[in-house]
Amino acid sequence: MPIADSVTLGQGVVIHHRDLVNLYGCTIGDDTKVGAFVEIQKGSVIGARCKVSSHTFVCEGVTIEDEVFIGHGVMFINDRHPRATADGQLQTESDWQVVPTRVCRGASIGSGAAILCGVTVGAGALVGAGAVVTKDVAPGATVAGVPARVLARAGGASSE
Amino acid sequence: MPIADSVTLGQGVVIHHRDLVNLYGCTIGDDTKVGAFVEIQKGSVIGARCKVSSHTFVCEGVTIEDEVFIGHGVMFINDRHPRATADGQLQTESDWQVVPTRVCRGASIGSGAAILCGVTVGAGALVGAGAVVTKDVAPGATVAGVPARVLARAGGASSE
Amino acid sequence: MPIADSVTLGQGVVIHHRDLVNLYGCTIGDDTKVGAFVEIQKGSVIGARCKVSSHTFVCEGVTIEDEVFIGHGVMFINDRHPRATADGQLQTESDWQVVPTRVCRGASIGSGAAILCGVTVGAGALVGAGAVVTKDVAPGATVAGVPARVLARAGGASSE
Repeated sequence: MPIADSVTLGQGVVIHHRDLVNLYGCTIGDDTKVGAFVEIQKGSVIGARCKVSSHTFVCEGVTIEDEVFIGHGVMFINDRHPRATADGQLQTESDWQVVPTRVCRGASIGSGAAILCGVTVGAGALVGAGAVVTKDVAPGATVAGVPARVLARAGGASSE
Repeated sequence: MPIADSVTLGQGVVIHHRDLVNLYGCTIGDDTKVGAFVEIQKGSVIGARCKVSSHTFVCEGVTIEDEVFIGHGVMFINDRHPRATADGQLQTESDWQVVPTRVCRGASIGSGAAILCGVTVGAGALVGAGAVVTKDVAPGATVAGVPARVLARAGGASSE
Repeated sequence: MPIADSVTLGQGVVIHHRDLVNLYGCTIGDDTKVGAFVEIQKGSVIGARCKVSSHTFVCEGVTIEDEVFIGHGVMFINDRHPRATADGQLQTESDWQVVPTRVCRGASIGSGAAILCGVTVGAGALVGAGAVVTKDVAPGATVAGVPARVLARAGGASSE
């Protein structure tokens, strides 16, 4: 059941390989495209006219607004201090707090990037491939590196 | 045959999507959870009460002790100088030496991290998302970056 | 249809898990091995006696010569400024220009690396795990880091 009944799909959503994705409990907006080998967890929301490319993981607590590009192999995160167990037992949902992340309208996340939890990627921002985003990205800014730093601000002026 | 007959599964192992994993010749301990799009190769050992999250690759030579958290899209490595061919022919197992890696009890590996071969990640250590671990991580330490550097030692003291 | 009819496979190509890959419109040379959870897009060309490891994404515009090792979770890129939409509509192929990338004979790309578009990785070069390659890599050189920098040149001399 790679697309669970709990998924809410908008009109015109394109998922070419329904047997090669793992979607459950999420909401996906109109005309959005989802690639192969993508997992989208419950409690995440993806807007309209987005592209979610192959090999990407979107976790609970992530909100992606409309017209956002998510590259290949992008990893979202919702736990600052992940552990397998608590008091020697496997953690359950009651053992951690989901820290939310938002990617605003028209932003692009490059392939292989990791987005730590609790951040907002501003509208129209561009996150470079392989970046690790540890804090908010201003609207229209371009960031890259580990940790991600600003390469250019909205309007094109370089910061360095 | 996404879970080969050669796999040894403990009691209570949870693999929600048995048709979306590729497991062969490995040993997985009691109550461990394995996500979608995970490949675990022969000759690797995973302990009890671990979480191995989606999109992760565990190769031959890797030993993961009990209660370890492995994030999404984590890549283990067992060859220092990978090449496709030797003397113009595809390499076979006799052409390389598997270099072992160990992740000790209770450690956590963040999403998108790569763990070079020959290292030991100490008990309770935390490897940040997107880190590239090139040398041993002390028990209880927190490391991050490319290459990974110590952010905090056991007990919480910062190194910088 | 995880291996589309549009794929041209050479003699002896090995794909152990044909239901866990997504290949379309590409050409793959003799005796090359392709791992699980690999996507290879139309318009890409992979040579003979290569290894393309699990979780890797090869996009349109990428040419991989013979005897190349591609690690696990490697992400190729073909668009410098990816966006989901143009003028409020999902982008189509006419909205962007594919920027080509070439990996030359005998090179090795480490696991988790991202290769930006428009670069050439020279013959026999070695790209370290987790590197982000932003410019050409000289034949025989070893590079690593984000962005990738030269660790050693052909012949073994260190640059730093």
